[in-house]
Amino acid sequence: MELEVSQEKLAKALNLVSRVAVGAKSTLPILTNVLIKANKGKVSLTTTNLDMAIIDYIPVISAEDGAITVPARLLAEFAQNLPHKEKIKIKSDNNKVKITAGKYSSVINGIAPDDFPELPEIDEEKSVTYKMPVDEFKAGLEQIVIAASGDTTRPALTGVYFNTDDGNLYIAATDGYRLAEKLFIKGVESEVKAIVPKATLQEVLRSISDDVEEVECIFDDSQVRFRMGEVEIISKLIDGTFPDYRRLIPDDNNVKLVLDREELIRIVKMAGLFARESNRVIVCESSKDNGVLYVYSISNEVGENKSEINTEVKLDGKVKVDSRYLLEALSVCDEDKVKFEFGDNGVPPILIMNAKNKDYRHIVMPLNI
Amino acid sequence: MELEVSQEKLAKALNLVSRVAVGAKSTLPILTNVLIKANKGKVSLTTTNLDMAIIDYIPVISAEDGAITVPARLLAEFAQNLPHKEKIKIKSDNNKVKITAGKYSSVINGIAPDDFPELPEIDEEKSVTYKMPVDEFKAGLEQIVIAASGDTTRPALTGVYFNTDDGNLYIAATDGYRLAEKLFIKGVESEVKAIVPKATLQEVLRSISDDVEEVECIFDDSQVRFRMGEVEIISKLIDGTFPDYRRLIPDDNNVKLVLDREELIRIVKMAGLFARESNRVIVCESSKDNGVLYVYSISNEVGENKSEINTEVKLDGKVKVDSRYLLEALSVCDEDKVKFEFGDNGVPPILIMNAKNKDYRHIVMPLNI
Repeated sequence: MELEVSQEKLAKALNLVSRVAVGAKSTLPILTNVLIKANKGKVSLTTTNLDMAIIDYIPVISAEDGAITVPARLLAEFAQNLPHKEKIKIKSDNNKVKITAGKYSSVINGIAPDDFPELPEIDEEKSVTYKMPVDEFKAGLEQIVIAASGDTTRPALTGVYFNTDDGNLYIAATDGYRLAEKLFIKGVESEVKAIVPKATLQEVLRSISDDVEEVECIFDDSQVRFRMGEVEIISKLIDGTFPDYRRLIPDDNNVKLVLDREELIRIVKMAGLFARESNRVIVCESSKDNGVLYVYSISNEVGENKSEINTEVKLDGKVKVDSRYLLEALSVCDEDKVKFEFGDNGVPPILIMNAKNKDYRHIVMPLNI
Repeated sequence: MELEVSQEKLAKALNLVSRVAVGAKSTLPILTNVLIKANKGKVSLTTTNLDMAIIDYIPVISAEDGAITVPARLLAEFAQNLPHKEKIKIKSDNNKVKITAGKYSSVINGIAPDDFPELPEIDEEKSVTYKMPVDEFKAGLEQIVIAASGDTTRPALTGVYFNTDDGNLYIAATDGYRLAEKLFIKGVESEVKAIVPKATLQEVLRSISDDVEEVECIFDDSQVRFRMGEVEIISKLIDGTFPDYRRLIPDDNNVKLVLDREELIRIVKMAGLFARESNRVIVCESSKDNGVLYVYSISNEVGENKSEINTEVKLDGKVKVDSRYLLEALSVCDEDKVKFEFGDNGVPPILIMNAKNKDYRHIVMPLNI
């Protein structure tokens, strides 16, 4: 294999794909490598960690067919250090890869591409495809991934659940303490129920470059592929059953408040400072007579904190909540005003959503200890 | 004690001094606190970790004399979260500190100030004082602190050595593998030999705000005080003997090169990538016939790398060096061209300095294995 490529294109693509390659101490050394493949003038860079693979197709000046794998991070750092505008030549010969650029030259020990574990192709016959504008895709996912669990003992909760219901596509995630749901695409024709690993989606979000306008998601029974411009990410789906979450979303909380989002974030943060030794538990209390929501916390050790926020209040009520979960929910709402709804007895799940747009709903379980 | 202060001034000062306060799990809880002291309208915030103390004098709207200590980081975060332009009232009553600002209020458990360990005052009778423009002070120290050691088994090497010689003030640091020296102030009258802890100097560098023009350093036998505008840092000196370093600085290396600094950084970085498994050892080789310096490294595992840089060469020579030390030395030189001088047999210390200005000298020991 032999190819010539600009420093800029190569460095950018390697920077992207080398993140997925496994770190240096892998038991399967080829997973630390990037597969460079030239086929009829088309050049691709691929890395995989066996759960997902990322492929970037790069424009080249010239290419002769062939393939080789070389340590991804080493090559990425080498390319990054070369002067911009430099043309880089890569030539493989018996698993030795010679890389030259002006006065700089390196020989890197590669591994033959035969052993590189590429993920199976998507079964296009049995697949469903969705396309959406990149801004909506990013905004929606960023509101959901925060609620996914990091606890691998319940694998289904470590992913985001793509599911169709009544002709719409929803995405949802929960870690058992909170739950987020977004109406992702209105009016879709094909149905899907698939759990995509959080790690895959975080990589997808990081891989979207500024010039991409549309994201294509294609699901078969066991895999998903995201295509964003010249970059593709293929990932296994999580094999498991996602909880029947819709029944958890309350629709009749009797304390219904509309609050300034920035102001609420500020006072929840302050109460949270005093709740560090008490599992971050803060109290939200609505007072009809005073027309305020009080947010407070008391710590025997540190002291106490109380703030208030003016709003229309129709019912006295009180709920305890983990300040971190509340803050994270508020931070991904995107309107100036938010709805904050709980039960006056503090028992039902707390609902947080934008005041106007109904597409995004975030539930946080109250604490009753 | 009672005082009123703007959110901006308080938050800025607390942010500064809380860095020196000890973390939450201290065996001496008062070290996690900030001492707030009002004396005749002058208000100071002080924290200490017993090795050093930082004091910031802040302008206030009003103040009644008194003192109290409260957890520094908690108060810093609380002040930071309050709306800008808000006026903050702080009132202590029996070790309870009430802090109010508009609709926000907190009561923080304080500790009486009697136990707060203030560092002894500088003995002004037996002291020497230096003053210098802040830009020179910062630039000089940044070139030196990188060479100080982190190894506490040789305390004298963990500091920067302020020393006068022949009527000039020098600063120097070494970790045994490299040595940096700067002519800090030309023509001083009083003499000093003092080792200032690296940690103190890093805190001093971080504490210089944009509006400060001059730094005052005052040394007595056992302490040093840096005054930068309204901020003072007082620190113990390191008790020990700094090596007689001047005899280590070579003045007759026979391979003398002048090189483009950015270009040399680039090729040293690239060679370093291939030297990770071999203790970062790279080779620099001058060739008289070709008029170049080659920089290369060879790794059995990874591969090899070779780059060259054109320059006037009068003697063939070869030296092995740790790429990290060389990079760090080059990164703190500040001219476009640098002198790079070594012995043709690779044995004497390597000298790196700016091509024109002679005030800064950096020595790196070669590797002869």
